[in-house]
Amino acid sequence: MNKILLITKKGVSIPKKLKETLYRVFKAHGIDIVEEFKPEYQNQILAVVVLGGDGTLLRAAPTAYMLDVPLLGVNLGRLGFLTEITEDEAGKTFESLAKGTYEIEERLILEVYSGPKKYLSLNEVAIIKGPLGLMIHIKVDCDGKLLSVYHGDGLIISTPTGSTAYNLSAGGPIVHPQSDNFILTPICPFMLSARPIVIPADKKLSASLLYKAEEVHVIIDGYINFILSHEDRLQIKKAPRTLKLVRSPTRDYFEILRIKLGWAEVKV
Amino acid sequence: MNKILLITKKGVSIPKKLKETLYRVFKAHGIDIVEEFKPEYQNQILAVVVLGGDGTLLRAAPTAYMLDVPLLGVNLGRLGFLTEITEDEAGKTFESLAKGTYEIEERLILEVYSGPKKYLSLNEVAIIKGPLGLMIHIKVDCDGKLLSVYHGDGLIISTPTGSTAYNLSAGGPIVHPQSDNFILTPICPFMLSARPIVIPADKKLSASLLYKAEEVHVIIDGYINFILSHEDRLQIKKAPRTLKLVRSPTRDYFEILRIKLGWAEVKV
Amino acid sequence: MNKILLITKKGVSIPKKLKETLYRVFKAHGIDIVEEFKPEYQNQILAVVVLGGDGTLLRAAPTAYMLDVPLLGVNLGRLGFLTEITEDEAGKTFESLAKGTYEIEERLILEVYSGPKKYLSLNEVAIIKGPLGLMIHIKVDCDGKLLSVYHGDGLIISTPTGSTAYNLSAGGPIVHPQSDNFILTPICPFMLSARPIVIPADKKLSASLLYKAEEVHVIIDGYINFILSHEDRLQIKKAPRTLKLVRSPTRDYFEILRIKLGWAEVKV
Amino acid sequence: MNKILLITKKGVSIPKKLKETLYRVFKAHGIDIVEEFKPEYQNQILAVVVLGGDGTLLRAAPTAYMLDVPLLGVNLGRLGFLTEITEDEAGKTFESLAKGTYEIEERLILEVYSGPKKYLSLNEVAIIKGPLGLMIHIKVDCDGKLLSVYHGDGLIISTPTGSTAYNLSAGGPIVHPQSDNFILTPICPFMLSARPIVIPADKKLSASLLYKAEEVHVIIDGYINFILSHEDRLQIKKAPRTLKLVRSPTRDYFEILRIKLGWAEVKV
Repeated sequence: MNKILLITKKGVSIPKKLKETLYRVFKAHGIDIVEEFKPEYQNQILAVVVLGGDGTLLRAAPTAYMLDVPLLGVNLGRLGFLTEITEDEAGKTFESLAKGTYEIEERLILEVYSGPKKYLSLNEVAIIKGPLGLMIHIKVDCDGKLLSVYHGDGLIISTPTGSTAYNLSAGGPIVHPQSDNFILTPICPFMLSARPIVIPADKKLSASLLYKAEEVHVIIDGYINFILSHEDRLQIKKAPRTLKLVRSPTRDYFEILRIKLGWAEVKV
Repeated sequence: MNKILLITKKGVSIPKKLKETLYRVFKAHGIDIVEEFKPEYQNQILAVVVLGGDGTLLRAAPTAYMLDVPLLGVNLGRLGFLTEITEDEAGKTFESLAKGTYEIEERLILEVYSGPKKYLSLNEVAIIKGPLGLMIHIKVDCDGKLLSVYHGDGLIISTPTGSTAYNLSAGGPIVHPQSDNFILTPICPFMLSARPIVIPADKKLSASLLYKAEEVHVIIDGYINFILSHEDRLQIKKAPRTLKLVRSPTRDYFEILRIKLGWAEVKV
Repeated sequence: MNKILLITKKGVSIPKKLKETLYRVFKAHGIDIVEEFKPEYQNQILAVVVLGGDGTLLRAAPTAYMLDVPLLGVNLGRLGFLTEITEDEAGKTFESLAKGTYEIEERLILEVYSGPKKYLSLNEVAIIKGPLGLMIHIKVDCDGKLLSVYHGDGLIISTPTGSTAYNLSAGGPIVHPQSDNFILTPICPFMLSARPIVIPADKKLSASLLYKAEEVHVIIDGYINFILSHEDRLQIKKAPRTLKLVRSPTRDYFEILRIKLGWAEVKV
Repeated sequence: MNKILLITKKGVSIPKKLKETLYRVFKAHGIDIVEEFKPEYQNQILAVVVLGGDGTLLRAAPTAYMLDVPLLGVNLGRLGFLTEITEDEAGKTFESLAKGTYEIEERLILEVYSGPKKYLSLNEVAIIKGPLGLMIHIKVDCDGKLLSVYHGDGLIISTPTGSTAYNLSAGGPIVHPQSDNFILTPICPFMLSARPIVIPADKKLSASLLYKAEEVHVIIDGYINFILSHEDRLQIKKAPRTLKLVRSPTRDYFEILRIKLGWAEVKV
């Protein structure tokens, strides 16, 4: 357990000072930094460190989940929902990671099954029609019983972590990351009675298209995508383990919400 | 354990056939029906039976909770969210109640503390300004830390059970009754960024007015109300036990949702 | 036409410098400032000047409308939607008012009839249940034909000017002040299909309660209120003239929107 | 003026009885039915008759607009918003069309300019990102001044007629067809303060992408589509004439709304 797996945003150069801090702090504790995972590292990875934005962390999450090690995100730009650590706080957080004195927050991970394939998701699975297609009709079952049929542009099945991402844009509620639930939020529903619904994460969901439709996309965490055919059945359930996200040492969840969402300001 | 506590909607006469069924079924099992609780019945009440609508059941819920016995609601009008049993199904359900073969569904109950007083709520606590007052500013803390300040007409703190009641009118999400959460939904917020938020029910909430305001009401489950002053602090937490609601033998939660909300119909 | 009617926010003292500017500029043009309207001033009032906030301007609007003179609002606090002129800009704007070189913006005014009484409204008429009452049912006719029945806490009938006030809090759309329309927005509707609707201002609306209800309030522009009984019929139509609001010399409508609503910022 | 241009839904066979009625009624008045427009018919077309659904009528609208003749839509399925005439009412309506005793309703048409091309729209212009793309940023000017920048999945610019179509799914208000306005409604906005806005139709709008983005689509009335590049500027204004839609002899606008949207029902 003497290696850190470093994942950085593609095409972005890491600020010199941050890089120096990173190498200096871990070296002092006899920890190597590797930028690529190799099978022989299997039991040597202490943690995954992401330098970038929320998008980079989403891509790194399955790796940290599968290695079952903490994931630390340092934001290179504006404060993120997932990359909670700013550059200024990085040194102190690297230090606590090396010493093992950090706090983690467990986050629900979705397993998404499509035929023989399995995907992991920290934020959400979105089923969405192509821009040229007609309205789609998505039938959702919950533990084998009909939940509803969603008519419209699509449907988002989100984790609490993802509730402040695409789900929020589509009109869904904010759900605290310690809340053990899924959120189903329709995208531009062609039915006035459609509302977001929150259901316990121990339920198993399956989604399929009621009718044939051209070009329906499944988008997972904004970077995985494949086509959903009429014959397909998407199965979604909670992963057996959680993701271990290293927490900001200084900000609680509601503070991040207030900063990111401009809460507690009276603008109107 | 040989008594049923019967609670009926005030001023409404029970259909003759239903009344006959009720008395016949329970008598056959040696169970008495009482319409008033007396201290000497303490350990003799088997269940509370409500004949009426959701409003009647809300008023009966604290009694069933405190006696820790099942609560069965038979709807005299249109199907309710809480009074899931129709008149037609009543006989069969009374039978299963007498035999002890019924299924129950546990529902989260809120405890609301205001000074020395304590209230129980199955649906929601609403803090709302009087119609003539100016905008109010409600500061909410969660486990002792600032959650947000809500500017506007008011705030609803709802249980999952209450999510399809006032919360839904105010724009809040539907939350499955087995989801162990609170829902905070602002009423006519004077801030564009205000959104409903779902938080785990193991958190303790407290709400108070940031500034002096005239005539601010606390309304619990639509029938308890008192005035909230600037000096007051409302404390809300999950009750130690759950309410035991007797389930419909024929309809699951999503079916009730679809019927009540007109889901799965394409009207637009 | 040599008098300015000055209306100030009750209990608020006008900044000394602003007061001096006000008196100096108008005196230089031979214009008197009066703080009370007297019948003998009928044809001598050049304009109404409001120093205060949007609430003060709303109260002054009927006077300016009835005198058919321009209304100028200088904001003493944060920029208002109606009091568009800041203290810094006041001198310049007083000058242009004295010289007659100002620009005005015409704003739709509502006439609200309740029995023998008539009220004028610049923002909105809200029909809202008292906090202790049950859901109310408001039947709205448009040009004598049924528009809809609104079930819930109430209904807002707003002008375009009022669209950024209570209407916005209740979920209604922003409507440009030059748009000749009414906006009907339900308050906490107990029906999932209720949506805000925008209708041409040449239509005549009438609203009444479908059933008896206790304590239903009519609130006009936040400061006029009376009780609506089951027998009453509220009639609403566009006033024959418009209100002449003196425009900000430096900001257009969309800029005010962007400032007030925090638009064009990406917070999420 | 002795010809009817008949446009039918592709691949759908017209009910035999309806077809007979159509030919019989018009023949009795010496009016021919043609199913294709030829230049020599220029001044001979009396009206355009559509048999189908709202989609078929949307495709026929530019033709009726350019010929400046009435457009009559008979719905072959469920009642439409645009195809207001049912099969049962068709005979009577054909009769009144032949006699010239019908009533028309004028509907605003958008002109959309993209480079050298011009399109006509009865419902809406939607700018929407492809399913795989990142958030887009749409800058909208109104009469040459910045209105707002919309961050998210896209933006709908709708006519009042289109307000009950895609606009409604995206959360926009219902706007009466006689209201002379555009509606701008964001699609899944990544900004909590984004709200639908209604602006007078005499304003000229232009929309462009603030940054380069892959695969941004412009979709007009659901059947025209093209790609919007970073260099493009979409210009939108009210067409000089209106579309003349033949009105239902029996239903007013609010009745159609109530039927189609399930209004005036209390489901919750």
